[in-house]
Amino acid sequence: MADPRFFARQGPFSIGELARMADAELNEGADAALMIRDVAALDAAGPDDVSFLDNPRYAETFAASRAGACVVHPRFASRAPAGMALILTPAPYMAYAHIARAFYPPPRPVPAIAPTAVVDPTVALGEGCRIDSGAVIGARAEIGAGSWIGANAVIGEAVQLGKDCVVGASASISHALIGERVMIYAGARIGQDGFGFASDRSGHTRVPQLGRVIVGDDVEIGANTTVDRGAGPDTVIGAGCMIDNLVQIGHNVQMGRGCVIVSQVGISGSTRLGDFVVIGGQTGLAGHLSIGSGVRIAAKSGVHTNVPAGTDIGGAPAVPVREWRRQLAAVARLGRQKKSEGESSPESD
Amino acid sequence: MADPRFFARQGPFSIGELARMADAELNEGADAALMIRDVAALDAAGPDDVSFLDNPRYAETFAASRAGACVVHPRFASRAPAGMALILTPAPYMAYAHIARAFYPPPRPVPAIAPTAVVDPTVALGEGCRIDSGAVIGARAEIGAGSWIGANAVIGEAVQLGKDCVVGASASISHALIGERVMIYAGARIGQDGFGFASDRSGHTRVPQLGRVIVGDDVEIGANTTVDRGAGPDTVIGAGCMIDNLVQIGHNVQMGRGCVIVSQVGISGSTRLGDFVVIGGQTGLAGHLSIGSGVRIAAKSGVHTNVPAGTDIGGAPAVPVREWRRQLAAVARLGRQKKSEGESSPESD
Amino acid sequence: MADPRFFARQGPFSIGELARMADAELNEGADAALMIRDVAALDAAGPDDVSFLDNPRYAETFAASRAGACVVHPRFASRAPAGMALILTPAPYMAYAHIARAFYPPPRPVPAIAPTAVVDPTVALGEGCRIDSGAVIGARAEIGAGSWIGANAVIGEAVQLGKDCVVGASASISHALIGERVMIYAGARIGQDGFGFASDRSGHTRVPQLGRVIVGDDVEIGANTTVDRGAGPDTVIGAGCMIDNLVQIGHNVQMGRGCVIVSQVGISGSTRLGDFVVIGGQTGLAGHLSIGSGVRIAAKSGVHTNVPAGTDIGGAPAVPVREWRRQLAAVARLGRQKKSEGESSPESD
Repeated sequence: MADPRFFARQGPFSIGELARMADAELNEGADAALMIRDVAALDAAGPDDVSFLDNPRYAETFAASRAGACVVHPRFASRAPAGMALILTPAPYMAYAHIARAFYPPPRPVPAIAPTAVVDPTVALGEGCRIDSGAVIGARAEIGAGSWIGANAVIGEAVQLGKDCVVGASASISHALIGERVMIYAGARIGQDGFGFASDRSGHTRVPQLGRVIVGDDVEIGANTTVDRGAGPDTVIGAGCMIDNLVQIGHNVQMGRGCVIVSQVGISGSTRLGDFVVIGGQTGLAGHLSIGSGVRIAAKSGVHTNVPAGTDIGGAPAVPVREWRRQLAAVARLGRQKKSEGESSPESD
Repeated sequence: MADPRFFARQGPFSIGELARMADAELNEGADAALMIRDVAALDAAGPDDVSFLDNPRYAETFAASRAGACVVHPRFASRAPAGMALILTPAPYMAYAHIARAFYPPPRPVPAIAPTAVVDPTVALGEGCRIDSGAVIGARAEIGAGSWIGANAVIGEAVQLGKDCVVGASASISHALIGERVMIYAGARIGQDGFGFASDRSGHTRVPQLGRVIVGDDVEIGANTTVDRGAGPDTVIGAGCMIDNLVQIGHNVQMGRGCVIVSQVGISGSTRLGDFVVIGGQTGLAGHLSIGSGVRIAAKSGVHTNVPAGTDIGGAPAVPVREWRRQLAAVARLGRQKKSEGESSPESD
Repeated sequence: MADPRFFARQGPFSIGELARMADAELNEGADAALMIRDVAALDAAGPDDVSFLDNPRYAETFAASRAGACVVHPRFASRAPAGMALILTPAPYMAYAHIARAFYPPPRPVPAIAPTAVVDPTVALGEGCRIDSGAVIGARAEIGAGSWIGANAVIGEAVQLGKDCVVGASASISHALIGERVMIYAGARIGQDGFGFASDRSGHTRVPQLGRVIVGDDVEIGANTTVDRGAGPDTVIGAGCMIDNLVQIGHNVQMGRGCVIVSQVGISGSTRLGDFVVIGGQTGLAGHLSIGSGVRIAAKSGVHTNVPAGTDIGGAPAVPVREWRRQLAAVARLGRQKKSEGESSPESD
């Protein structure tokens, strides 16, 4: 079970309630009134816990689990231990997400403004906000109802945050208009100048960066991630995007809805992503590209060209995944050749 | 136009004044007294705006632009729409930089020390500094006139900053001597211990890091970038270097003047760069290397050897760009071969 | 010598004392009472200084050094300049580490709680702690004796730190249990939510992250590094691990003892490392992997498979170093072929 020093548990809930939350069905013969007290991993769960099976590699663990109930795809139902209640759904991980959020809902801020927070008198602060110690909110900023500004976070002048946002400790935001239910993790940097300057032999002259950062609803921006404001147009992050830690988003980047950007990715200036683009960790995208909706890019790739919607690509420079796999297989063969082979017949390789 | 909630515009200026600022010429027949109120992109500009054409791919947009004036290379003059005033220069982007800075000059700090800032009584604070809420400045630090220390930034004991520096929100600086007009963005970490320790079977013993970070004039250090102090010698960043976000600079690194380091680059300890070295994003440099002046390194490269001045390199391990392109082309061909080909004749590849 | 504005020197020490600290021997004829005042690099040292020779490439510099004493492997003793006292040991860098720490011991915090620090009344604060300006320590946290919490750092509710820890400026920690003598550098982010959500066509639903971060004794976590808490199990960092700047550690990662993780590495969720694993800079590891003890991974690698203990690997995807070198050599040859060769005979490459 989760460490009660850090996590406050709700419940218990009956498996009938849980199935309803998860938009799922109980197995035949299950007792809808069975009470469940907590979530737990398959191998740690006991009779009061609900667990889940999503990754088939854990099917054996499922078959041996002592969980009182389990969220599972119907195709695994026959492998359940005797007496386990089954919450059946074709999307067990999503169902589990809803159940786990019932037991452990995101903490709601207790409204309060800490004595050492510095909130400019011109700030428009919604109802029920929590402003933690040392947070600084600049003139004319607007903070939506129910938002939580963490300790030592800095919200710049005229920044707008929608309702129910969370800004982590020591994060900073400037030149930005931010939607509702947005989570900005600790140390994220939103709205600073982009990397824009004109160069000649005498050096570099900064070009004023006159755009903003526009963030849609339900976005998450990870710890120590940086999002530069636009140079003239805005930098735009569409609703529902999930951005991991230590990501760099350059000026004028435009992301559609629901994109997933894994840790340490860098997206160069003015590149546009469609909706639901997925980018694996440590990948880099050059500037001024157009990446279509649904594109998936493997980790550690380098993308230098436009990519049509719905394509899976990988490699550096990135190519369609099928080609990339052939490249990797060919290079792997080169590595398995004996050194002498390679060197004795350079004309053949 | 720039959002007036975030940006304060100066002007208007006549195109004669703008041409003078930009060290450029007006086209024949242009009315030097024509007043311009703002900068704007080619496709958004109206008769009161000045725009610019730098990238030839936007030549069509230029030809259709409604901008009152445009900064442009003389070779494009004949494609201008009728009636557009032209500010002619062989370096339009630099000229535009100067004009845009006239309309939107970098904000000057209004001198003030916020009540919640903590400035040690032994700090030597120049005239006209602005110290924002929650900033902490340690004993014996020296802050040059006109400098601006952002909210919750931390300046360690005995650190020196020159005139007109800007330190962003929540940045921290220790063990450092910093020049004039240096911009350190939000969350940058300057002067912490380098990654130096001696190891044996029992573990790792930290070696004291006894150098400093020396930063020249007119340097920019990006958001959440880290610059470790020297181990014995200093870590040195030459005047005019532009360093993007999330870059790592190891201990004892020495950079010459005017280098450009794009986001997520890592430079390992004791490597030296000459002047005006340009390093593309996500590139890594091993330690103890010597990279000559004017070297340009492609994004995502891995550099393991010294590089002579003036060379363009790319790849991992990095080689001269011409070789690298051939490598890429050869690997791309391997990826386009049918799988059967590759597999049926392993002896030939 | 180190800049006295930043570093406080102890000593002097006799070479007899230094040899004892370093568990080393003096050369025959050396005067154990010879007093040494400082450490210095071979080329900068004078008669009052002790230096060291570790990397053989500096053997010439050693032979010409004016250092009064030098820590050196016995095999180089014969190349010492006349009159130099030698502190002989098979592990000169480790010996130097101990000597340098005698002259420049890690700064001990002067116990004090800054007036602007915010320490919740329920915090259990050990003896002799130093809490700097603007630091915020949440309810029920426990801070071990002798610990130093830097300016504007944020320690969340119920977090535990052991004795003699140092938390750098603006770092933040939540949901974590941390051992003794742990150093967390400026801007590090420990304990935030991992990147965990369930996705369907309507978008992404966050899965509660119910684990903690457990950090062993004597760990270092670099500037602006991020360590996510576990999703259910904990994220674990074993005793003595050294983690550089800008590293990403995903949820549920488990690291054994003494691992060395160089800057900008990313370790994806649920991957396990054994003891003394060494990972070069900018390398990425996929999730759910098992990396055995003593594995060494070259910089910029991409690891997608389990790796048996004691293996050296490199490349993306990573393979045993010997294979990787052959791959690199083969690709390098492709790059050196004339373009015409490659193109005229595609069937042979």
